[in-house]
Amino acid sequence: MENVQVKLVKRPIGEPKADDFAIVRGPVPEPQAGQVLVEVHYLSLDPAMRGWMNEGKSYVKPVGLGEVMRALGVGRVIASADPRFTVGDYVSGTLGVQKYAVCDASDLTKVDPNLAPLPAHLHVLGMTGLTAYFGLLDVGRPQPGETVLVSAAAGAVGSLVGQIAKLKGCRVVGIAGGAQKCAYVRDELGFDAVIDYRHEDVARAIKTHCPKGVDIYFDNVGGEILDAALAALALRGRVVLCGAIAVYNATEKPAGPSNYLSLLINRGRMEGFIVFDYRERYPEAIAELATWLRQGKLKHREHIVSGIETFPERLLMLFRGENLGKLVLQVIE
Amino acid sequence: MENVQVKLVKRPIGEPKADDFAIVRGPVPEPQAGQVLVEVHYLSLDPAMRGWMNEGKSYVKPVGLGEVMRALGVGRVIASADPRFTVGDYVSGTLGVQKYAVCDASDLTKVDPNLAPLPAHLHVLGMTGLTAYFGLLDVGRPQPGETVLVSAAAGAVGSLVGQIAKLKGCRVVGIAGGAQKCAYVRDELGFDAVIDYRHEDVARAIKTHCPKGVDIYFDNVGGEILDAALAALALRGRVVLCGAIAVYNATEKPAGPSNYLSLLINRGRMEGFIVFDYRERYPEAIAELATWLRQGKLKHREHIVSGIETFPERLLMLFRGENLGKLVLQVIE
Repeated sequence: MENVQVKLVKRPIGEPKADDFAIVRGPVPEPQAGQVLVEVHYLSLDPAMRGWMNEGKSYVKPVGLGEVMRALGVGRVIASADPRFTVGDYVSGTLGVQKYAVCDASDLTKVDPNLAPLPAHLHVLGMTGLTAYFGLLDVGRPQPGETVLVSAAAGAVGSLVGQIAKLKGCRVVGIAGGAQKCAYVRDELGFDAVIDYRHEDVARAIKTHCPKGVDIYFDNVGGEILDAALAALALRGRVVLCGAIAVYNATEKPAGPSNYLSLLINRGRMEGFIVFDYRERYPEAIAELATWLRQGKLKHREHIVSGIETFPERLLMLFRGENLGKLVLQVIE
Repeated sequence: MENVQVKLVKRPIGEPKADDFAIVRGPVPEPQAGQVLVEVHYLSLDPAMRGWMNEGKSYVKPVGLGEVMRALGVGRVIASADPRFTVGDYVSGTLGVQKYAVCDASDLTKVDPNLAPLPAHLHVLGMTGLTAYFGLLDVGRPQPGETVLVSAAAGAVGSLVGQIAKLKGCRVVGIAGGAQKCAYVRDELGFDAVIDYRHEDVARAIKTHCPKGVDIYFDNVGGEILDAALAALALRGRVVLCGAIAVYNATEKPAGPSNYLSLLINRGRMEGFIVFDYRERYPEAIAELATWLRQGKLKHREHIVSGIETFPERLLMLFRGENLGKLVLQVIE
């Protein structure tokens, strides 16, 4: 048994490149007391990973040079030195981009593979589901009848935000890139309307599809789309800052949202959040998400790619909009 | 008795110019049933006036071309056709830039000239006091020990925000332009520290004076200072958007705050407000402000200029930072 690890060896400038990482082969370590050895099955590829590669203050410490690249994942316990886990348990946690991970037992959570296939535990029942849930419900605070606008609507978080907003009685408008994604958002996910940012004037389309203004804009992208949403904000509108995929690879300081004074005129609120802050409330959220899932009320799609060595190039798919649904890297053959 | 009115006749592009206004002389009108004739004593000159001159959707309707320029003021009732007011009463309200104003009685509020000189009723006990009060306390929600950063700290709103924050147990850092204003903020108003934006690197000075980060930034100016404050935001920091004097006269779309993602990293909130929304709570606020005033806890300074015809040029003093304290136009000789 050989471990394969993807380590960060250079801080990327702009888009991460293959040589920012090293593929390192070595022995599989033994778990010490309180630890568990996990065979990694699937890893979550997330835009936030780009931020973790940067030096400097952020909401989590950067991945150190020479360290295994941080990644959330699900896998199976194959050796345990902690009474809370036994061989054969399925677990999720920050496993890292590697085939075998030794983790502190206290950092792992058991997952039920009967509830949903393993990749879904990185999506609806994982961090993206939790991000959509707390960002929309706690930060956005939707009221029935309100208009919710979601960018990256075909993406992992956006697709769930829109569906949860529908469950809460909102009118939901999505923004996505290209005909295929737009059809998915409208026809499969059941959004009320969708805007194709590649082929439409987004600012104008928002005004058309949100005639009473935007009560909640759930922002996954930043850039010009954030600015257009601000311009269309309704009275007491809220902008939920979840991400800014449009600027994560920027090498120059990105432009700020020049329409921010719409927040003043409309008594609006723009607020950021980090899902990790809601850790204590994960169980309640997972329970509600699982209920919706069982009831068939939350559609989800995972885009599964495979091969741990392909990590650097697969990650870029997110920034190029090449994934449809939650991007998951299959590690085990 | 002749009325003198300053009417808006052109929509200014950039800074308002003298010929955007017309000085019109004419008869003094008679109040009809339910109305009151007010002799205007003092008018409040406010940065917000610039916004009222623009066409288009905002939080109040624009001043129409050919209409008397909107202005808050205080004056004396000289004729009344409403039982709620008698000749000799002092009142405040939206009197307009004119010597004599006919107003609906329901739009006026009695003021007590024994509580404070009339100009103070346009400041501490008027709209600027209310703006500072609700913006800081309701939107910013300061906690004892927090660090509050205030721009335009020598200005009408900023000077009160800082003093109220001190009354609430906060550490208060002001930003002002020039040695005289900075001395006023530090030595007379009792701020803990002051930054001279004309002579210091504001971003660096904020980090020096707010070593634990900025819990509340009360923004009166926008522009680069907003961006610097965002960069120094503390965890769960709040940005209260009160105004953006730096950009009100902009003829091109201003740059947005490029550090807005600090709101995401720090789970921050940026929120706008309009004092008029708090109308029902004015009495409680005025009562508390009056108490502080009587106790000598709120210092205030009015910068009084005179001559109604000088309105256009006096207004520009605000944008040039030429006033020290609340700018008030004395109308009556």
